[in-house]
Amino acid sequence: MKGLKIVTIGGGSSYTPELVEGFIKRYKELPIRELWLVDIPDGKEKLEIVGELARRMVEKAGVPMAIHLTLNRREALKDADFVTTQIRVGLLDARAKDERIPLKFGVIGQETNGPGGLFKALRTVPVILDICKDIEELCPDAWLINFSNPAGLNTEAVLRYSNIRKVVGLCNLPIGMRMNVAELLNINVDRVHIDFAGLNHMVFGLNVYVDGIKVTDKVIDKMTSGEQTETVKNIPDFQWEPEFIRALGFLPCPYHRYYYQTSVMLEDQVEAYKKNGTRAEVVKKLEAELFELYKDPNLDVKPPQLEKRGGAYYSDAACNLIYSIYNDKRDIQTVNVRNNGAISGIPEDSAVEVNCVITKEGPKPIAVGNLPVPVRGLVQQIKSFERTAAEAAVTGDYHKALLAMTINPLVPSDAIAKQILDEMLEAHKDYLPQFKCLESADAK
Amino acid sequence: MKGLKIVTIGGGSSYTPELVEGFIKRYKELPIRELWLVDIPDGKEKLEIVGELARRMVEKAGVPMAIHLTLNRREALKDADFVTTQIRVGLLDARAKDERIPLKFGVIGQETNGPGGLFKALRTVPVILDICKDIEELCPDAWLINFSNPAGLNTEAVLRYSNIRKVVGLCNLPIGMRMNVAELLNINVDRVHIDFAGLNHMVFGLNVYVDGIKVTDKVIDKMTSGEQTETVKNIPDFQWEPEFIRALGFLPCPYHRYYYQTSVMLEDQVEAYKKNGTRAEVVKKLEAELFELYKDPNLDVKPPQLEKRGGAYYSDAACNLIYSIYNDKRDIQTVNVRNNGAISGIPEDSAVEVNCVITKEGPKPIAVGNLPVPVRGLVQQIKSFERTAAEAAVTGDYHKALLAMTINPLVPSDAIAKQILDEMLEAHKDYLPQFKCLESADAK
Amino acid sequence: MKGLKIVTIGGGSSYTPELVEGFIKRYKELPIRELWLVDIPDGKEKLEIVGELARRMVEKAGVPMAIHLTLNRREALKDADFVTTQIRVGLLDARAKDERIPLKFGVIGQETNGPGGLFKALRTVPVILDICKDIEELCPDAWLINFSNPAGLNTEAVLRYSNIRKVVGLCNLPIGMRMNVAELLNINVDRVHIDFAGLNHMVFGLNVYVDGIKVTDKVIDKMTSGEQTETVKNIPDFQWEPEFIRALGFLPCPYHRYYYQTSVMLEDQVEAYKKNGTRAEVVKKLEAELFELYKDPNLDVKPPQLEKRGGAYYSDAACNLIYSIYNDKRDIQTVNVRNNGAISGIPEDSAVEVNCVITKEGPKPIAVGNLPVPVRGLVQQIKSFERTAAEAAVTGDYHKALLAMTINPLVPSDAIAKQILDEMLEAHKDYLPQFKCLESADAK
Amino acid sequence: MKGLKIVTIGGGSSYTPELVEGFIKRYKELPIRELWLVDIPDGKEKLEIVGELARRMVEKAGVPMAIHLTLNRREALKDADFVTTQIRVGLLDARAKDERIPLKFGVIGQETNGPGGLFKALRTVPVILDICKDIEELCPDAWLINFSNPAGLNTEAVLRYSNIRKVVGLCNLPIGMRMNVAELLNINVDRVHIDFAGLNHMVFGLNVYVDGIKVTDKVIDKMTSGEQTETVKNIPDFQWEPEFIRALGFLPCPYHRYYYQTSVMLEDQVEAYKKNGTRAEVVKKLEAELFELYKDPNLDVKPPQLEKRGGAYYSDAACNLIYSIYNDKRDIQTVNVRNNGAISGIPEDSAVEVNCVITKEGPKPIAVGNLPVPVRGLVQQIKSFERTAAEAAVTGDYHKALLAMTINPLVPSDAIAKQILDEMLEAHKDYLPQFKCLESADAK
Ligand SMILES: [Mn+2]
Ligand SMILES: [Mn+2]
Ligand SMILES: [Mn+2]
Ligand SMILES: [Mn+2]
Repeated sequence: MKGLKIVTIGGGSSYTPELVEGFIKRYKELPIRELWLVDIPDGKEKLEIVGELARRMVEKAGVPMAIHLTLNRREALKDADFVTTQIRVGLLDARAKDERIPLKFGVIGQETNGPGGLFKALRTVPVILDICKDIEELCPDAWLINFSNPAGLNTEAVLRYSNIRKVVGLCNLPIGMRMNVAELLNINVDRVHIDFAGLNHMVFGLNVYVDGIKVTDKVIDKMTSGEQTETVKNIPDFQWEPEFIRALGFLPCPYHRYYYQTSVMLEDQVEAYKKNGTRAEVVKKLEAELFELYKDPNLDVKPPQLEKRGGAYYSDAACNLIYSIYNDKRDIQTVNVRNNGAISGIPEDSAVEVNCVITKEGPKPIAVGNLPVPVRGLVQQIKSFERTAAEAAVTGDYHKALLAMTINPLVPSDAIAKQILDEMLEAHKDYLPQFKCLESADAK
Repeated sequence: MKGLKIVTIGGGSSYTPELVEGFIKRYKELPIRELWLVDIPDGKEKLEIVGELARRMVEKAGVPMAIHLTLNRREALKDADFVTTQIRVGLLDARAKDERIPLKFGVIGQETNGPGGLFKALRTVPVILDICKDIEELCPDAWLINFSNPAGLNTEAVLRYSNIRKVVGLCNLPIGMRMNVAELLNINVDRVHIDFAGLNHMVFGLNVYVDGIKVTDKVIDKMTSGEQTETVKNIPDFQWEPEFIRALGFLPCPYHRYYYQTSVMLEDQVEAYKKNGTRAEVVKKLEAELFELYKDPNLDVKPPQLEKRGGAYYSDAACNLIYSIYNDKRDIQTVNVRNNGAISGIPEDSAVEVNCVITKEGPKPIAVGNLPVPVRGLVQQIKSFERTAAEAAVTGDYHKALLAMTINPLVPSDAIAKQILDEMLEAHKDYLPQFKCLESADAK
Repeated sequence: MKGLKIVTIGGGSSYTPELVEGFIKRYKELPIRELWLVDIPDGKEKLEIVGELARRMVEKAGVPMAIHLTLNRREALKDADFVTTQIRVGLLDARAKDERIPLKFGVIGQETNGPGGLFKALRTVPVILDICKDIEELCPDAWLINFSNPAGLNTEAVLRYSNIRKVVGLCNLPIGMRMNVAELLNINVDRVHIDFAGLNHMVFGLNVYVDGIKVTDKVIDKMTSGEQTETVKNIPDFQWEPEFIRALGFLPCPYHRYYYQTSVMLEDQVEAYKKNGTRAEVVKKLEAELFELYKDPNLDVKPPQLEKRGGAYYSDAACNLIYSIYNDKRDIQTVNVRNNGAISGIPEDSAVEVNCVITKEGPKPIAVGNLPVPVRGLVQQIKSFERTAAEAAVTGDYHKALLAMTINPLVPSDAIAKQILDEMLEAHKDYLPQFKCLESADAK
Repeated sequence: MKGLKIVTIGGGSSYTPELVEGFIKRYKELPIRELWLVDIPDGKEKLEIVGELARRMVEKAGVPMAIHLTLNRREALKDADFVTTQIRVGLLDARAKDERIPLKFGVIGQETNGPGGLFKALRTVPVILDICKDIEELCPDAWLINFSNPAGLNTEAVLRYSNIRKVVGLCNLPIGMRMNVAELLNINVDRVHIDFAGLNHMVFGLNVYVDGIKVTDKVIDKMTSGEQTETVKNIPDFQWEPEFIRALGFLPCPYHRYYYQTSVMLEDQVEAYKKNGTRAEVVKKLEAELFELYKDPNLDVKPPQLEKRGGAYYSDAACNLIYSIYNDKRDIQTVNVRNNGAISGIPEDSAVEVNCVITKEGPKPIAVGNLPVPVRGLVQQIKSFERTAAEAAVTGDYHKALLAMTINPLVPSDAIAKQILDEMLEAHKDYLPQFKCLESADAK
């Protein structure tokens, strides 16, 4: 049977049209025979709305890609070539809690590497590992392309607690950073290459090249010199202390603001919350609007409104990765994979986010060696958090969860950690069956 | 010439009587021929007061140890066997600034691993390296025993920026932790052994043994179970969230409260400051009282008031170390030395605080291997800070100093880091000749 | 019940009187209640001869140490405090084959790290692992002190394939090297300290100290300057190329001659074999003579003839180790233990031979860091061999055994490796039940 | 000025026509403006013969590539974009000694990683480092592409003893191994991908893929099953013990036969020497014939006879590498570069031979992690040799040279090492000005 079978778990997501568009665009070199969109019963309605739109898009494009909609994951997975996961356990309501509860205690929720991310992981990791078991049985040669957050932590958990090795975690930050640099230099993004290394949402752009020439210092000069008015226009959201960026000497990622500007970010979040509620609540409204659009039977392309949604390029990154694996493209992409020694000081079997050359055999990480001294510690600290959180997610051990919460750099004390933890465990208990401590009245 | 020559730089310190007492007690097995107390011109008066007391102590004890007082460091160092350093560049006034300025910006000063510690390092490291140059020339076989803070960072700087390899950094925390455990278990401290590993003021007690049997869990149970009233009595200052300590599974050191209880510690410090001013100011008063006592020509022993001073056991630790090196004692002490691979993931040539067997050839670190996952990150982060700070101290590079300040876990943002840095550079400029940026009007 | 229970597996060995003497000498500080000598049915006669001698020795010394003789290992192990193993699976006849068969193919047998050692390991490791299972069940807190060869490889196997962690492998080379240096310098051995590091029979004396002063160069000068006739007298067996030792700059162990003088050693062995047969055959004769002596009912001390036997100080090393563990002596001994990071570049969970401080909690390895560049490779090569051989011993996998044989530095080709392997597998098949390939007619 | 300037040092080599052909073939995408062929006065005649042929080739091809011939290296290097080195210090006569002298002592010469290679390094490294100094001054942005042997050791020396970081060492073995596999499977070489890792002439093919599917076991089956007559035809030179290759489970390189079949290789060499003299002498004859051909003014293409010369694909590999760097091709090539952590356990700043993705910023090594246990030791041993030899080459230290010779796995004893060393030092003394020991009469 010719052509690829692709399975998208969490297929009812509002992002799916971007993914479908990406596949259609690449169809000639990425001949997908079947695209299975899988969701859970609670997501049936959305799955159908999105699925119908996908069918209209495919038909309009005139490509022979069959769209299957199902609530039966195992049926879908049989003999798949690629499995993508874009799940959100507990939906946006859970995310709202991830953000709101920490904030109540004066702590940033931060849904990926922060306290919110811990709970997102506690809910998500068991589901991902469950999918891994199905993959092992039903499509052992498939690649698992995960873009559910926390993408780095999820990859760590798969590498450490499943038998699946063909796993890649995806994020749109690195491509976003490249685009920003291109915009800043006013050149085409293809000419910009960046040596990325670190962890998911904790990645640094260590060297920047244009046409093979190192221009890191020049880029930093441009970024930090407020005089040039056009520069400022190009990077309206540059909110770093310029001297700090000069001192660092390479590019932080936007999420680094949580760690290098904790107090500022907290104030912003409190302010934003007062105005609009949590980001989850904002997104919920946006999503409802998107689904209204998707229902329109005349709509047969990805609506432009989706690009404003925030996760732009995520699906594109997934399509690109699948495309390069399938075609043995050997381009360089920045993804989350088994370290394999690429970053010294991080275990070989831990997940890292680094530049990889994408081959038919999968992404192969490019060796980075030691990270620069000043950032080595922070990267290790997030890795300590990720590993402890993954262990808590798998074991349901209250103390491991407390440890993960306390060592998180955003959490200001062990006592506050315990308060947040206890309240969040209670709030999310329907999605945390592994935590036996929740069964009795007392949360411990 | 028989007997040892010991040189104490910063000999006018209020701690010196403890050191002298320690040497007297051990005289039989540690025959010190000459003890040279060295100080700078500004410390001449104190040096004389302390020196006279030392002479009375020695005479009373009837040991033939000559006490020399001098402002000429090079004269003193000639052919020394051991050099101890207990210097405080800028005296307590500088420390007051180290504490007060950060607090103004809502940040803990923390005079060793925090923003205050950065400035203590910027002032102290060049002086220590200067001493190293003299040692290299005048007494190349001498051991340098440093108990000036930040003791870990200073050791790092000596290892990285001088040719001296016979260097040990000292702290009284590990012995204090052992004493606490002994008190908790109500047994003699000699029966308690703890596997210590980490960095200075960032050291963990990984395993606790009594008579060779591992009792870590039992100790943690005792520490965290509030029911036993006598336990509570024994550890009045136990201020950890008990579940966190259970989750950790080993002993943090008191300074870990700065990192695992940042918010609480900050409140405490603000409160204490309002009541008593900085700790430096409190200590200054204590010191003045001590020197009043020392002046008394009838005083010929270490006055008991000194023990309340705070740094108890520091001098005793120094005496003990010198004693064990001289006598090839092969006991285990916890000191700051070249890692040499003892802690995996930290460079071989960096300083760590670990258990060492103390031989005539010096302290030899016992291999620890990898630190436990949950604390690996924090230890690395402080090492990132120490190395960056040491580099700033040596180079006088403004950006390195800003980097060190910003990556410090106690500092909440890059912008605040810059504000604190700029104000502190200005405040301490007399002691920071290496910072060329201070020469011009503008602090950068 | 007061006093220690010690179990010696392979108790019928001719070395046992040295062990018994060692225990008697230390009785005051090492109060052994019961010494169990265990052997297999084939060794019953020797066990009884040795056992009776032991009883006479104990009686003569007047110490209340009960000597138990048994063929029931499990009965003996119950609640033991220390278990020593001095087994020789297949006895000296097997060793004769280990030496003779390789020699037939022009290859040194070398019964520890060479082709002979591979077969010694294939026979011994399964028995040691079996003992470990019994220890786990019957005396889980006991220390396993192994001096069966290959001592390093056996320790590796215990660490990697059993649950026992309280294991130490012993060798008499390091103490022998210290004694040689003392003799060379004509001083008491207690004044000599050597930093040992490497693997069993692959250990280097990196630094030599006398009274804490480094004298490595001086020792090497003495060793290599043939002019001084008295030196030559002191080291009649110095057979190194002097310039090589000067180039090396530290001390090789006697077994290094197999690797740095392969051709010479081979000629020696061929020569010796022609004259006296294998070393095993020589030893067999010596042993028979010893047992004749042991039978004498008037003999009630260790006969002086035993010291000529070759393994002198092995039992003494065992007594010393037990003594230091029991008394928390904190002296430094060179033993085979879990690396724990002591030697960089060797896995934490592999066995190494390094200086350890001996505490009640067991031997704690002193951190060495990186080995000197010129010897790093050879040490790694023997570790490759040890790990591959241990895997072959546990799995009975023909190909792993062939791989171990081929990568051994003494074996000159893959084809010869196969010939030796096939002949030895056949010759030892009674002791290699794990090799299923031996069941069929064809040896593969 | 448009187009590239390429400088080939050792331009008078018989290989140059292949290089010129490679450049001509790629001219469209690799527009070389000037190709400078540099040689030393002794090579003037050959340089002119080869240079004239190059000019005829360029003219015939109709590409505007200027061929410059010079004995003035510094003039040539000015503003070069790429510098290739194919030097042979002492010419084939020196190589003949490298091979003949060891053989006299019953030792394989092996001109890259063996005793011969040591001397090749002692002669070559100083010249390469000299070239590096010129590059630093005259064309600091140029890439140094070295294919002089020992290519790995030379790269190590450049990384460790010069300031040049844009250096790549080249070998034709990896491409040859891929071709062999392709031939064995009877498929196009482009479909074969191999994960290579190790050192130069010590590289392993860890995984073999066809179209992205791992087929290592299948390839090994084919290689080792003698039954299939066509297989045997395909690999006439398969001379491994089949069971060994099965045990290994991945591909050794042809040079591994020196280490895994030392005795066989030695016999072969002795045999071959008796018949034809050294390989150097054979090659010398071949070269003379080639130069006769080159002189023919009608010859304007690379003569087919050159392919039989042995080093086929070397120049092609160089062209390919330059082409991929210039065009940011991002294909995977196997080259010698700074390890950068790619192979765990080898220092970051040492040279390794690994798969790299070739970008405009240079080759970036793909992370391998730990090598398989059985080969880890041998790789480390050659790295020990390379580093010690490089140090000897730079310092001219007799003892370092002796150490390198003795630790080489092909050398059977320290005494023989010294004999070979002393004789070779004397034989090559004209090319070893750094060895001060050669100045006096006595060779030490
Ligand atoms: Mn992301
Ligand atoms: Mn301290
Ligand atoms: Mn031994
Ligand atoms: Mn080659």
